[in-house]
Amino acid sequence: MKTFIECIPCLIRQAVDTAKFVTEDTELLQRIVKECLILAADFDISQPPPASARRIYRKICEMTGNNDPYQEVKARFNRMVLAMLPELIRIVGSSGDPFMTALRMAIAGNVIDFGVNGGVSENAVKRAIENSIQEPLSGDISALRIAVERAGSILYLADNAGEIVLDRLFIGYLPADRVTLAVRGGPAINDATLADAYAAGLHEMVRVIDNGYDAPGTLLDQCSPEFQKVFADADLVISKGQGNFETLIGVDKNIFYLFKVKCAVAAMLSDLPLGTYAVVNGNA
Amino acid sequence: MKTFIECIPCLIRQAVDTAKFVTEDTELLQRIVKECLILAADFDISQPPPASARRIYRKICEMTGNNDPYQEVKARFNRMVLAMLPELIRIVGSSGDPFMTALRMAIAGNVIDFGVNGGVSENAVKRAIENSIQEPLSGDISALRIAVERAGSILYLADNAGEIVLDRLFIGYLPADRVTLAVRGGPAINDATLADAYAAGLHEMVRVIDNGYDAPGTLLDQCSPEFQKVFADADLVISKGQGNFETLIGVDKNIFYLFKVKCAVAAMLSDLPLGTYAVVNGNA
Repeated sequence: MKTFIECIPCLIRQAVDTAKFVTEDTELLQRIVKECLILAADFDISQPPPASARRIYRKICEMTGNNDPYQEVKARFNRMVLAMLPELIRIVGSSGDPFMTALRMAIAGNVIDFGVNGGVSENAVKRAIENSIQEPLSGDISALRIAVERAGSILYLADNAGEIVLDRLFIGYLPADRVTLAVRGGPAINDATLADAYAAGLHEMVRVIDNGYDAPGTLLDQCSPEFQKVFADADLVISKGQGNFETLIGVDKNIFYLFKVKCAVAAMLSDLPLGTYAVVNGNA
Repeated sequence: MKTFIECIPCLIRQAVDTAKFVTEDTELLQRIVKECLILAADFDISQPPPASARRIYRKICEMTGNNDPYQEVKARFNRMVLAMLPELIRIVGSSGDPFMTALRMAIAGNVIDFGVNGGVSENAVKRAIENSIQEPLSGDISALRIAVERAGSILYLADNAGEIVLDRLFIGYLPADRVTLAVRGGPAINDATLADAYAAGLHEMVRVIDNGYDAPGTLLDQCSPEFQKVFADADLVISKGQGNFETLIGVDKNIFYLFKVKCAVAAMLSDLPLGTYAVVNGNA
């Protein structure tokens, strides 16, 4: 997708949230926001929002000398969800439809998004997981089940740290020997990187790669040739989160997008109400 | 107050809302947003947000060649509330505490704010008025009553068009011969100007003046000498809306601020939850 003008204030809000997260130095904060406004005046709005989010995030990292501000947050949310995992495995396993229950929990994990909400709390995540069973979900789950059964190779695009532990839960109901999990190629807000995939233990279940680029989404033409090949060769792509949805929607590929609808633009594009657990079939 | 960095994304959001309201020309919209971002990088954040909101609004007017984009909206909301007025006068008059009921309705009118919400609907306004009786209200109303009784001269600072008709309802319970009502000196979003005060019939009840400046607030040092004198001479100032609160809070004057708390920064400054009907005693 292109960047809508409604995305611009949101990207500036993300800049303010990230800057406040990284520093308490008022003078530096003001300089960062000023630089991000100048940067935003120069955004290429033919590109999806994560391309601009990356430019803002890199600018803040550069100005604060901190290359991975959310490193500690990512580790903390991984630990938190890992601590819940045995109980969640039990709940999923004893549910009437484990695939569906695990899918819902994987989407619930999508609340751990420091781009959309700079102040995600551990309690909010626990509540989201607890409530995941009854949240409004929209999408053709049978089509996803069939696509999974038929696919010789599945590329699973992870989104955020913490969330990736819930992806592990769901991936447990996919054919592990046919799944490749891909994470970001470098720090992008609290998006999962290789360190998070390892922390979540995913390397013990499936093949794990990174996409070679540090945007909070999948900008295919910026990704590494290795990733591009895996993407091209995959029979099915399961794409987590709004960032991947924003960067891949419209790509001619068998993709199912799993995400929580978090903003008016994504609601408009998916034709689903805010807050919906979306399972969007990119082919339909 | 100064401008907080949290205000910057909100001011950009206001720019987008206003630009979309004024034009549907995508290319012009993009140029407007770009110019507003460049302008925002140059904001004087030692000034209150309405000073920056004014710069954005003037820029959009200049770029679209439309000096008063909300003129029709202002007239429409005046007409709508005027049509409700006889029934509201009856409800207020037959209530146990007409001063309080009218005060609540005047604050309910504060939802007609195209700065905070670019898509205020007539239904939302009707609902706000109907619900005004039971909304959480915070403030020392006895202190306001006493201040009104004691004041030889009262300056009432209006906020938005439409809302000003509900101010008329409340002003009916103030000593009319001692009240001066002041509006903006020129178009500022949907803020009330002289035309709105006349449309609301306020000139038949009290002395009506304008403040000589076109910001969506009261930037005293930019206002006309005539307004500054009325302000200086007033024993009591009743200030409607967040814009007046943001620009006057901290001024050494006997001011009661009546507004609905509409953003996190105003909530923090007033120490009241979002959505509260606030009656803030500037002296307390």
